[in-house]
Amino acid sequence: MRGLQEIRTDIADIDERILNLYKERMQLTEELVEYRLAAGKKIFDFTPVEAFDFKNARVVFQGVEGAYSQQALQEFFGADTQSYHVETWRDAMEAIAGDEADYAVLPIENSSAGIVSENFDLLVEYDNCIIGEQIIKIDHCLLGLKDAELSDITDVYSHPQALMQCSKYLGEHPAIERHSLKNTAGSAKKVRDDGKKNQAAIAAKITADIYDLKVLAEGIQNNTSNSTKFIIVTKKKVFRKNADKISICFEIPHKSGSLYQTLSHFIYNNLNMNKIESRPIQGKTWEYRFFIDIEGNLTDGAVQNALNGLEDETEGLKILGNY
Amino acid sequence: MRGLQEIRTDIADIDERILNLYKERMQLTEELVEYRLAAGKKIFDFTPVEAFDFKNARVVFQGVEGAYSQQALQEFFGADTQSYHVETWRDAMEAIAGDEADYAVLPIENSSAGIVSENFDLLVEYDNCIIGEQIIKIDHCLLGLKDAELSDITDVYSHPQALMQCSKYLGEHPAIERHSLKNTAGSAKKVRDDGKKNQAAIAAKITADIYDLKVLAEGIQNNTSNSTKFIIVTKKKVFRKNADKISICFEIPHKSGSLYQTLSHFIYNNLNMNKIESRPIQGKTWEYRFFIDIEGNLTDGAVQNALNGLEDETEGLKILGNY
Repeated sequence: MRGLQEIRTDIADIDERILNLYKERMQLTEELVEYRLAAGKKIFDFTPVEAFDFKNARVVFQGVEGAYSQQALQEFFGADTQSYHVETWRDAMEAIAGDEADYAVLPIENSSAGIVSENFDLLVEYDNCIIGEQIIKIDHCLLGLKDAELSDITDVYSHPQALMQCSKYLGEHPAIERHSLKNTAGSAKKVRDDGKKNQAAIAAKITADIYDLKVLAEGIQNNTSNSTKFIIVTKKKVFRKNADKISICFEIPHKSGSLYQTLSHFIYNNLNMNKIESRPIQGKTWEYRFFIDIEGNLTDGAVQNALNGLEDETEGLKILGNY
Repeated sequence: MRGLQEIRTDIADIDERILNLYKERMQLTEELVEYRLAAGKKIFDFTPVEAFDFKNARVVFQGVEGAYSQQALQEFFGADTQSYHVETWRDAMEAIAGDEADYAVLPIENSSAGIVSENFDLLVEYDNCIIGEQIIKIDHCLLGLKDAELSDITDVYSHPQALMQCSKYLGEHPAIERHSLKNTAGSAKKVRDDGKKNQAAIAAKITADIYDLKVLAEGIQNNTSNSTKFIIVTKKKVFRKNADKISICFEIPHKSGSLYQTLSHFIYNNLNMNKIESRPIQGKTWEYRFFIDIEGNLTDGAVQNALNGLEDETEGLKILGNY
């Protein structure tokens, strides 16, 4: 048996040889891209722009007045942007697909509850493109009628994610029954419209003013640094020339080991992968679609190589946006 | 510029050299494990067993009589196993941590709605261990009072995942308001107890008999091949010697590129990775804990190497079970 130190030195030596081979491979794949470009081949369907012009943009969000989505919209586009709201996220996707709006604002992930899975699925279903993201700090309040006290409350209404984000607070009040509604601000509206002292909503503080409600408890989310990431989507396949994040998704053939073979394209091309999510593929039991964020721009050779490689080895590769 | 075919041949050649280096590396890391074992070092805290003895086992599930969890329990342990139910998944975890039960049965993922995120979080919080899994086909029904008709229904109660799994059916009946309850069978119990003709539950067909309800609609889930995976957890860190699946989780330091560096341990050790999930880390905004399933047994050298490597480069590596 050889010495421990000797084995460790051999491993370090192999690691360096592997790394050098990867570097060599990257140069070769860049030559491949040059060939493709020289042959006039367009690899992806996206058009680069210097900057976006949001003047006269019509923007749609889901929910009612006072929704967190509306806050995100105003932060991203400015407070005086022409906007309107629809009832469901699907309606928002339809609105831009059907040219009724230019942009839609959709929540995609919360820092404590995780992804908004339905919007991942809608990104696959619709051929819309992500052009930006906006993070909004979430501070949930328990809102009731003006004459209600906390002890009156027997029923609470909110979006399922908001209920999850306040699970500790609600766990300390086990007598309060939880009801899921489509959005937080809509829950506040319901409490106002129903006019029942035993009902409360979980929503943003600003919603209390809009719907004439009383703040029964403030900052009731489990995590005090709770924030939600919203994406801005549009119909045209465009990206800023200085965009540095690419979101893609793909399915992988149902065979052992294919996930890491697929991910090796990022390693081969020295690309940073920041996020990975999997979602079940509808109609295919226990098969998954992967959603991955990488750093880079669609004009980079390494990015083009990795995406070409993925296109060969995966199914349904879709570039969701470069932003 | 060299020919296209020439470049492709060079790339294929490099890929083969990389693969051979990986093989060489694996042999070296196996030598390392032999050293550790020879030095009497125990690498993981798990005890291998030939088989489990479930005689006299006390098993806990969440929900009420007729829950899908109870079906999973009976499939895995046998119909005459001593079992009882608790109100929440946390209660089930507490029951085995506190020795009130030997095993708990918890849903971990649905083939169409995705992961049961709360149970992933509980696996991190509690020091319990997965020893098996059981898949149950899910066939949701709309259940109402014996004298109710579909047209009477204005309110439907079920678990949020079940409501999501039936979103298409519910979307076709927009007048029916959706309410989240803790479980499907409990929703059926509520409809029976409330005795209101306008209420319905979404639950398994067998629940209709238990709670004396009528099946108003059958197989209403979006996906006809809908199934749920349940895990069997226990307090002791044990695994079957022929177990072939390992579930682990870890956090990665918040720096660019660390995710793929981490995953390279599976590639280096030639391990198949079947599943990857990320969940937000509570209290750390936009940082993630990754849950990964790999093929293998804790007694394999390659597995031990990969896990040792991960322990060096990640934080809070936890082996959730080998089953």
